[in-house]
Amino acid sequence: MIQVGIFGVTGYTGYELVRILAQHPDVQVQFATSQSFAGKWLTDVYPQAPHLPLIEEADAPLETVDVVFLCLPHAAAAATAVRALNTGGKVIDLSADFRLADPAVYAQWYGHEHPAPELLGTARSGFGFAVYGLTEWAREQLPGADLVAVPGCYPTSVLLGLRPLLQRPLLAAKLPLTGPIIADSKSGVSGAGRQASDTTHFMNVADNFAPYKIGRAHRHLPEMEQVMHWWQADAPPLIFSPHLLPVPRGILSTIYVTIAGDWTLGDVAALYTDMYAGEPFVCVLPPGQVATLAHVTNTNKCVIGLAQAGNTLIITSAIDNLIKGAAGQAVQDMNVVFRLDETTGLV
Amino acid sequence: MIQVGIFGVTGYTGYELVRILAQHPDVQVQFATSQSFAGKWLTDVYPQAPHLPLIEEADAPLETVDVVFLCLPHAAAAATAVRALNTGGKVIDLSADFRLADPAVYAQWYGHEHPAPELLGTARSGFGFAVYGLTEWAREQLPGADLVAVPGCYPTSVLLGLRPLLQRPLLAAKLPLTGPIIADSKSGVSGAGRQASDTTHFMNVADNFAPYKIGRAHRHLPEMEQVMHWWQADAPPLIFSPHLLPVPRGILSTIYVTIAGDWTLGDVAALYTDMYAGEPFVCVLPPGQVATLAHVTNTNKCVIGLAQAGNTLIITSAIDNLIKGAAGQAVQDMNVVFRLDETTGLV
Amino acid sequence: MIQVGIFGVTGYTGYELVRILAQHPDVQVQFATSQSFAGKWLTDVYPQAPHLPLIEEADAPLETVDVVFLCLPHAAAAATAVRALNTGGKVIDLSADFRLADPAVYAQWYGHEHPAPELLGTARSGFGFAVYGLTEWAREQLPGADLVAVPGCYPTSVLLGLRPLLQRPLLAAKLPLTGPIIADSKSGVSGAGRQASDTTHFMNVADNFAPYKIGRAHRHLPEMEQVMHWWQADAPPLIFSPHLLPVPRGILSTIYVTIAGDWTLGDVAALYTDMYAGEPFVCVLPPGQVATLAHVTNTNKCVIGLAQAGNTLIITSAIDNLIKGAAGQAVQDMNVVFRLDETTGLV
Amino acid sequence: MIQVGIFGVTGYTGYELVRILAQHPDVQVQFATSQSFAGKWLTDVYPQAPHLPLIEEADAPLETVDVVFLCLPHAAAAATAVRALNTGGKVIDLSADFRLADPAVYAQWYGHEHPAPELLGTARSGFGFAVYGLTEWAREQLPGADLVAVPGCYPTSVLLGLRPLLQRPLLAAKLPLTGPIIADSKSGVSGAGRQASDTTHFMNVADNFAPYKIGRAHRHLPEMEQVMHWWQADAPPLIFSPHLLPVPRGILSTIYVTIAGDWTLGDVAALYTDMYAGEPFVCVLPPGQVATLAHVTNTNKCVIGLAQAGNTLIITSAIDNLIKGAAGQAVQDMNVVFRLDETTGLV
Repeated sequence: MIQVGIFGVTGYTGYELVRILAQHPDVQVQFATSQSFAGKWLTDVYPQAPHLPLIEEADAPLETVDVVFLCLPHAAAAATAVRALNTGGKVIDLSADFRLADPAVYAQWYGHEHPAPELLGTARSGFGFAVYGLTEWAREQLPGADLVAVPGCYPTSVLLGLRPLLQRPLLAAKLPLTGPIIADSKSGVSGAGRQASDTTHFMNVADNFAPYKIGRAHRHLPEMEQVMHWWQADAPPLIFSPHLLPVPRGILSTIYVTIAGDWTLGDVAALYTDMYAGEPFVCVLPPGQVATLAHVTNTNKCVIGLAQAGNTLIITSAIDNLIKGAAGQAVQDMNVVFRLDETTGLV
Repeated sequence: MIQVGIFGVTGYTGYELVRILAQHPDVQVQFATSQSFAGKWLTDVYPQAPHLPLIEEADAPLETVDVVFLCLPHAAAAATAVRALNTGGKVIDLSADFRLADPAVYAQWYGHEHPAPELLGTARSGFGFAVYGLTEWAREQLPGADLVAVPGCYPTSVLLGLRPLLQRPLLAAKLPLTGPIIADSKSGVSGAGRQASDTTHFMNVADNFAPYKIGRAHRHLPEMEQVMHWWQADAPPLIFSPHLLPVPRGILSTIYVTIAGDWTLGDVAALYTDMYAGEPFVCVLPPGQVATLAHVTNTNKCVIGLAQAGNTLIITSAIDNLIKGAAGQAVQDMNVVFRLDETTGLV
Repeated sequence: MIQVGIFGVTGYTGYELVRILAQHPDVQVQFATSQSFAGKWLTDVYPQAPHLPLIEEADAPLETVDVVFLCLPHAAAAATAVRALNTGGKVIDLSADFRLADPAVYAQWYGHEHPAPELLGTARSGFGFAVYGLTEWAREQLPGADLVAVPGCYPTSVLLGLRPLLQRPLLAAKLPLTGPIIADSKSGVSGAGRQASDTTHFMNVADNFAPYKIGRAHRHLPEMEQVMHWWQADAPPLIFSPHLLPVPRGILSTIYVTIAGDWTLGDVAALYTDMYAGEPFVCVLPPGQVATLAHVTNTNKCVIGLAQAGNTLIITSAIDNLIKGAAGQAVQDMNVVFRLDETTGLV
Repeated sequence: MIQVGIFGVTGYTGYELVRILAQHPDVQVQFATSQSFAGKWLTDVYPQAPHLPLIEEADAPLETVDVVFLCLPHAAAAATAVRALNTGGKVIDLSADFRLADPAVYAQWYGHEHPAPELLGTARSGFGFAVYGLTEWAREQLPGADLVAVPGCYPTSVLLGLRPLLQRPLLAAKLPLTGPIIADSKSGVSGAGRQASDTTHFMNVADNFAPYKIGRAHRHLPEMEQVMHWWQADAPPLIFSPHLLPVPRGILSTIYVTIAGDWTLGDVAALYTDMYAGEPFVCVLPPGQVATLAHVTNTNKCVIGLAQAGNTLIITSAIDNLIKGAAGQAVQDMNVVFRLDETTGLV
C-alpha cells in the first residue's frame, strides 16, 4: 500500500482527490490538512466525504507517507514541496508552482520570485527536476519521479487537443500551422474555487455566461505556450479566451487552427486516432462529431472532436476540470510514478 | 393606433413579441394565430401572457390590420406574407424567408425553392422589395417599407459586433482584415424553439454544454456572409461555431478578427464608439471590458466589448436572443417603418 | 413628482426597487446610498442598472425628498427611519424593524432591544404609528401614513394564502381550523442576499435543494403568527419550513390547513375569489390548479391555487420574492400612501 | 457470476442500472433491450455508457440469464415478468406492476385490470408471490425470492422516513399519531422520464418550481398507504404533494407527523438511530440537522433529519431518485436475493 498525505483537502480539487483515492485499491490516506477547517472532520465540509480528520499543515506527519499531493495555493505549494522532498517523500503538486520551467516567466505571471527555482525544469527540457505531468506525454519521464507538476485544467483540455498537430515533424513541414491558434474555452464554476465571492455567487452565475481574462491575460497562457514550444519550436502564438459556464464542472475548449496546404479532415483524424490509439483516457470521436461536457463529466476522460471549415481545423476538446483537469490526472500520474496500472482507481 | 396581427404567437418569439406589444402605447393587437392551440387562450400556454384568444391562421382577419408579424416556420412565412401584402398590409417577418437576397442560396440552405422570389432583394442590394431589418444599418430604408426581414438571432449579435470593422472604407485599405473571421457563439435554450425534443430536454441541457453545426454548417452562416459582403466586398470568410448554453435566454458571441498593420485597441475602440454614438440599443464598453449575458438579458440591447491579442481583435457581443435577436428588433423595425420614436415600447 | 431617496440600493431588494421606480411616472429618485459602494455608480454593481451615483448614507440629503425607502439591515433601518421622520419625510421600510408590534418579541428574535419602540404598533393593533403594509389588508390605513413596514417575503406568500380563511368570522364558527397550520415554503437564492457566502456559492446551490430553520426557528414565524392573530384571535399555531431552491427568484409556499366540518373545495374557492375579487395583484386559480413560480416571476402578483385532501385544504401560493415580496409591494404601498393609482409603475 | 438481462435499458432508470451493474464484481450483463433504439448501441444514446448492443425485447435470450431487471412501463412489465418467470429466471421489477397487493387498487390507479394478479401479494401480506423490495424492511423475505417489486422513488423516501414511527407497537400505544401525515416531496427532473415533453422542456423547468398531483392524486399514494398499513393497521391517512425541482436528480421529502402525548426530539431520534443502527444505506443525522440533496446525489443512501415543532415531528428524508429510489435499490435487492453482501457494487 502506498501511504499518502493530502495538503489542502477542503478545496474542490482536494476533495475530488480524496474521493478518488478512497476507491483506489493500492492507496492508504494517512493524513489530510486544511488551514480553514483543522480540528474538524472532512464530513463537516462535504456531507458525502470519507470521515477523515483535518489537521494543521504544520502537524502533518510527513515521515509516515510515500507521497504527498499538494492542493495548495501557489508559493505555499512550493514551500511544502521542499519540506516533503527533504523528508524523502515524493510530491505530486496540483498548484502552478512547478509547471513553468523558467522562473522568470513564473515571476512575471505570479507576481513574486519562485520559492524553489532549483527544483524547476520539466520533462524534455533537458535540465531540472520536476516532471510536467500531462500523463499521455510524460509517461516515460514519470516512473520514479520525485516531483510532478500536474498541468492546469485549461492546459489539459487545450494541449491534448493540439498535441497531434504539434508533435508530428512531418506535418510541421508539409502542413504548416499559420497565424495564431485560438482556444475559446468554457469552464464550470468549480474551476473558480471554493472561496465564496461575487464571481461564484449563484445570482451572478445562474442564467449568465461571461468571458474573463481573454486574449493573452490568463495565467494558463504561458503554461500552454511553453508546452507547445516543447512540441514544435516554431509553434504559432496562442490566443486563449476563458469563459465561465453556469454548470458545476467540466471544460470545453473550441480550438481553431489554420493549417496551410492541402489536407482533408480524414487526414487529420487519422493523425489523432493514430497518436491516441490505446490511450485509456483520450477518446477521439469520428470526424464531424463534437465533444460535449456530457461526454466527460465525472470521468477522467478527454474527448476530442474534429471538424473542418476551409483551411481551419476546429477541435472540440472536453474534460472534467476536477478529474482529468486536476485530481484524476494527479492520480494517473501517481500510478505511473509508482509503476501501477495507469488506470487504477480511475475507471 | 397601429392595428397589428401576429402569426404564430405561441412560439417563444411570438410570445415575447406579444409581451412587448402589450406595453407599446401606439399598438393594438387585433388577432393572434396558433396552429397548435387555436381555440384556446394564450394564457393556457403561458401563464403570464395577456388574455388573448388564439385563432386559426386561415381565420385571421387580415383586412383589419396595418401590419402583421410572422413568427412562422420558413416557407409558411413566405406564403402568409404574400397573402398579407395582397390585402394591403405591411409584413414584418421574423422567419428566414426574406433574409437572403439570392433565391439560389436560399434553396441550397433551406432545401426547397423559395416560395416568393419576386419579393426578395434586401436593403442596399439595388433591387427587390424586402428590407433586411438590422435596424441600426437599415434605418433609412425602413420608413414606409412593406416587407421587413428581421435578422436571425446569431447574425444580429455577430453583425453588430463586426459592422464598424467592415463598413469603414479607410480602415479596409489601411488595416486589412486577414484570414477567416471566427465567431464562437453561445446561445440559451429558447433559441432551439418551443417544441419538446431530446435537444431541449432538461436532462440533456442542464450541467451540459455542447457545440453544434460548427464551422460552415449552420443556416445563419450565409445570412451573415451576405451582409458582410454588402459592407465590404472582399470581406474574409466566416467560421461560425454555435454552442448550446444551459440558460433560458441570451447569446454571447466571441469574435476573432485578425487585422494587419499597426493598430491599437484605442484606435479600434474609437471606430466603434464613433459608429455607435447615439444608438439607443448598442452599447460599446470601455476597451478591455467584456460583454456578458447579464448585460443584456430581458433588454433590447446589444453590448459590445473589445480586447486585443497581438494582431487579433477579440469582440464580445451580447444580446437577448428573443428581444434584440428577434421580437424586440422586430418592434424596433416597426417603429421605424411607421415613423415612431425608435425606442417606443422597448425601454 | 414624488421625490424619493433609497437607502441600501445595492442589495437585491434595493436594486429591484430602483428598477421599478425608474419606470414609475410619478417618481423621481433624488439619491441612493450604499455603504459598500459609495463613490461609485450603480452601473458598476449591476450592469443593467440606471446610471445613479452611490452616496454615503450620512450624506443623504433627507430634506430634498418626500419619502425614503429603507433597504437596510435591521436596527440600521430603525435608526435611519427616525432621522428621516424627523426631517419630515415619510418612510417605507423594507427591513424587519417595524413589522412586529411587540418590542419584546422583536428583542427575542433579533437579539437586541428595539431601537425605536415608540414608533411600533401596526395596523389594527389600536395603538402605535407604523402600518404593516400588506397592501391588500392595509389599504385603508395606508393613505397618508408616515411609516410603513413592508412585510417579509415569506409572510407575504403565506399570509395572502391564508387570509380568506382567517378573516371570515362566519367560517371561524362553522368551520374551525384545527391543529397547526403548516407552511412548506421554497425560495430562490436572491432571498439569501447579495453577500457572497457558502450558502450562496453556486456549487452549493446548483443541483441541490435544502431545508433550513424549519419548524419554529425562522424570524418570519412571529411576523406571520402576529398577523394571523390579528385576523383570528384563536388562530392555530404555524409550522414554517423554508427551503432554498436553485433558482434566482420566486417563492412557492405549499400550505396545509385542516378545516373541521363539512366543506367542499368549491365553498373555499368561493371564499377566496370573493375576498380577492377586484384585487389587481392577487389571482386565485380555478379549483384544482396549482400555483407555480412561472406564474409570478418578474411580476408583482400573488397567484393562489387551492386543492383538497380530505379535511385538509392545500393552498399553493406563489410570488416573486423581490417584487411582491419586497420592492414591488413597497411601491404598491407608496402608491396608496400618496393616493396614486395602486398599480402605477407595477404593470 | 450472475447472468443478468435488462429490459428497457435506455430510460434513465435502465441506464443508471447498467452503470451500477458494470461496476458489480459478481454480475455479467447478457443482454439489454430497448424498443426505441434496438439495433443501435447504448453509447449512441448515452455517451458515457458501456458499449452494449441494444436488442428488441422479443429477441431477448431469457434462457441465458439468472435474473432480469424490468425498467418497462406498467402492464408491459407484468407481461415480460410472466415470460421470464416461465423460463425459470428471477425478476426484479422496477415498474409499479407488483407493488400493490390488491389488484382492485391497481386497476383503480392504473386504469386497467392487472395483467397477472396471481403473482401479486407482497411481503408480510400473508399470501401471494411478489416481495415488496424496500430492502431494509424486506431483508428476510428477499433471499431466494423469484419476483421483487422495487418500490417507487417517492415511496422509498417517505417510507424510510416514517418506518420507525409506524413499526413500533409501544410507540403506537403511548404516543399515537394523530391527524393526517403530510409528505411534501420535491423531485429532480429525471423522475419525469426520458421522453421529451412540455413538462421536461428546459424552458419550463429552469428557474421554475411547480407542484403537481398534490393531495391524494398521485399513483404513489396507494403504494405508500399500503405499506403504512402493513406497519400500523390504524396508520393515519397520507397527504402527498410532489413538486418538480429544477435539478437533474434527487428527492427530498419534508414529512410532518403529529404525535400526541409527551415526547422529546431525543426520544424520537433514539427510535430512529436504534432502528437504523447498522444499516449500510440509511443515515440518521443528529437531531436538528436537515437532510439535503447534497447528502445523497449519486449514492444509494437515504439520509434522514429530524426536527420538532410543538407536537409535530418534521422528518426530512433525501435520496437519489435514480439510485436508492430505483436502480440502486434494485441491485441492493438483487444482492440479498442472491445472498451476496448487500452493499456489493453500491459503495
